[in-house]
Amino acid sequence: MALRGHVSLVGAGPGDPALLTRRAVERLRAADLVLYDALVDPRVLALARRAHCFFVGKRAGRHALGQPEIHSIMIRAARRGRRVVRLKGGDPFVFGRGGEEAQALQAAGVAFDIVPGVTSALAAPALAGIPVTHRGLASACLLVSGHDVEAFRSLVAGLPANRLTLVVLMGGERRANLASVLVGLGWRAATPVAVVSSGSLPQQETWRGTLDEVARGLATVEGEGPSVIVVGDVAALALVDLPAQTIPAEGLG
Amino acid sequence: MALRGHVSLVGAGPGDPALLTRRAVERLRAADLVLYDALVDPRVLALARRAHCFFVGKRAGRHALGQPEIHSIMIRAARRGRRVVRLKGGDPFVFGRGGEEAQALQAAGVAFDIVPGVTSALAAPALAGIPVTHRGLASACLLVSGHDVEAFRSLVAGLPANRLTLVVLMGGERRANLASVLVGLGWRAATPVAVVSSGSLPQQETWRGTLDEVARGLATVEGEGPSVIVVGDVAALALVDLPAQTIPAEGLG
Repeated sequence: MALRGHVSLVGAGPGDPALLTRRAVERLRAADLVLYDALVDPRVLALARRAHCFFVGKRAGRHALGQPEIHSIMIRAARRGRRVVRLKGGDPFVFGRGGEEAQALQAAGVAFDIVPGVTSALAAPALAGIPVTHRGLASACLLVSGHDVEAFRSLVAGLPANRLTLVVLMGGERRANLASVLVGLGWRAATPVAVVSSGSLPQQETWRGTLDEVARGLATVEGEGPSVIVVGDVAALALVDLPAQTIPAEGLG
Repeated sequence: MALRGHVSLVGAGPGDPALLTRRAVERLRAADLVLYDALVDPRVLALARRAHCFFVGKRAGRHALGQPEIHSIMIRAARRGRRVVRLKGGDPFVFGRGGEEAQALQAAGVAFDIVPGVTSALAAPALAGIPVTHRGLASACLLVSGHDVEAFRSLVAGLPANRLTLVVLMGGERRANLASVLVGLGWRAATPVAVVSSGSLPQQETWRGTLDEVARGLATVEGEGPSVIVVGDVAALALVDLPAQTIPAEGLG
């Protein structure tokens, strides 16, 4: 059977290979080439049995490859008839620059599809026992980047303080500054906060405390995993604090 | 092997069974009892080969069972040693009342876990070619319920208009009113909007237009599927508008 070249922009989920979707597994198994980012678990890559796997993400703060080079590799491989998987941590369209890659593929006339994944923005809180919405506590949830403190400030400035849940990605190192911004905007100093590190992985760890404590630099999380910061009353709902591993995951291979 | 009773709060994803996670499939296959909601696809239930499947969701606007009854069934079945799956459309902790169910299970001392799913709040836009974040267009995304127009108004009143993406769930029938609220708050009348109905399913359909058109009642979507409303410049990025079905999904059983 002749195969036409194709690119799939695939969400790898929060880390645990059991949280891959069935379509993601299928795309990995059929792939000739996998281009993957720093946050992708090696056990996920192991599913791509036929593929050459190529790291294109960030290493020590620098990109291994620039975005134009990534586009170019995908396009050339697809034109040579390869099945390419562009594998991104979480979901490709949630802080994943998947939109830019889709635009490049579309402009080049390359066939592609999107395979949504479980985003760590929601799964990391969930696996720490935190529903981002909860009746009486929060009926909305803002997913926001903490990469730039001033951009964060301008986005959250008009929010009704303590009326919704904030989920901050890419804010780990700046969390004291981000918390100070919120306190300055009128969020209660006692607002519950959870910092979930390495959500879904065996080394998952959750710090719990208040916005004031985060602002004072007291939120300490071991390890170097990426963290998700949850701000709001739901962060005090510690319903369960374990990755969903309580039933053996037999037969996932 | 003796099995202890257990409840899994499982996200069924946006509808397409290929977007279930591997852990969700595993929990369904091992389940003795599945309690499911209205938005769960029959092909997903078919995976629960050993289980009694019981509908507990909404039917014609009324709940088949109240929340306390659902809690009671889960708790009693788990205490009798059953493996229970509480299967919810999308993700159990995103507008799914999963937090309330987890609280009830915890209070009863029943072992449970959370299996995050792909939320339709993000997957429906993605499968319509819309990344909810995109460099230069949106660096934040608000997931908000459109169930109550006044509650919606108070949540979005202070947002920086046209600076982030709004994803409105449960707002299908009230979309003209919700759009009028946003225009009244200073969002550009020409702000792009997409209404994605039955995201991920074969009958997926997307209406595209402007906020002003939605406010004037011009956003018409066929079918009776649940819809997700995306408001913001990203809604004009129609990168691909097909469910991710371009490669045959062989071997998903």
